[in-house]
Amino acid sequence: MTAWVQVGLKPTVLDPQGQAIHAALRKLGFGAVAEVRQAKVFRVQVAAGADPAEARLQVERAAREVLANPVIEEFSIRWEE
Amino acid sequence: MTAWVQVGLKPTVLDPQGQAIHAALRKLGFGAVAEVRQAKVFRVQVAAGADPAEARLQVERAAREVLANPVIEEFSIRWEE
Repeated sequence: MTAWVQVGLKPTVLDPQGQAIHAALRKLGFGAVAEVRQAKVFRVQVAAGADPAEARLQVERAAREVLANPVIEEFSIRWEE
Repeated sequence: MTAWVQVGLKPTVLDPQGQAIHAALRKLGFGAVAEVRQAKVFRVQVAAGADPAEARLQVERAAREVLANPVIEEFSIRWEE
């Protein structure tokens, strides 16, 4: 069982890294790009013997308490068997 | 039109950042986690007036030539209308 935890800045928070990438792309001639925002993804592999329900709780708690900073970031979790 | 470009280390490349996060999670009691690997995601917004076919080409080229380092990284692109 694998969780993909995506952590990105809240829409209201400025993303200077994304803006820098966007500016670089424009300079390189990628004119079709209007905006770039960068986020992180964690691929979290669950231990083979772990209880699935408990694993889900742990990954959700890890995302909320460790992987994301709730003041400026939001996260989403996608599960794969 | 929006592209989600995910850039991650190739499976054969060590991910010390992911390993550090995994070690921290284990120490914090998240015992169900067996492995963590970290990747980047870029949300690329296409300009309103851009030609869709040209925009797809540009985003693919940007992913290959700018956003990912083909020596150690691989990328995938998911499109959203």
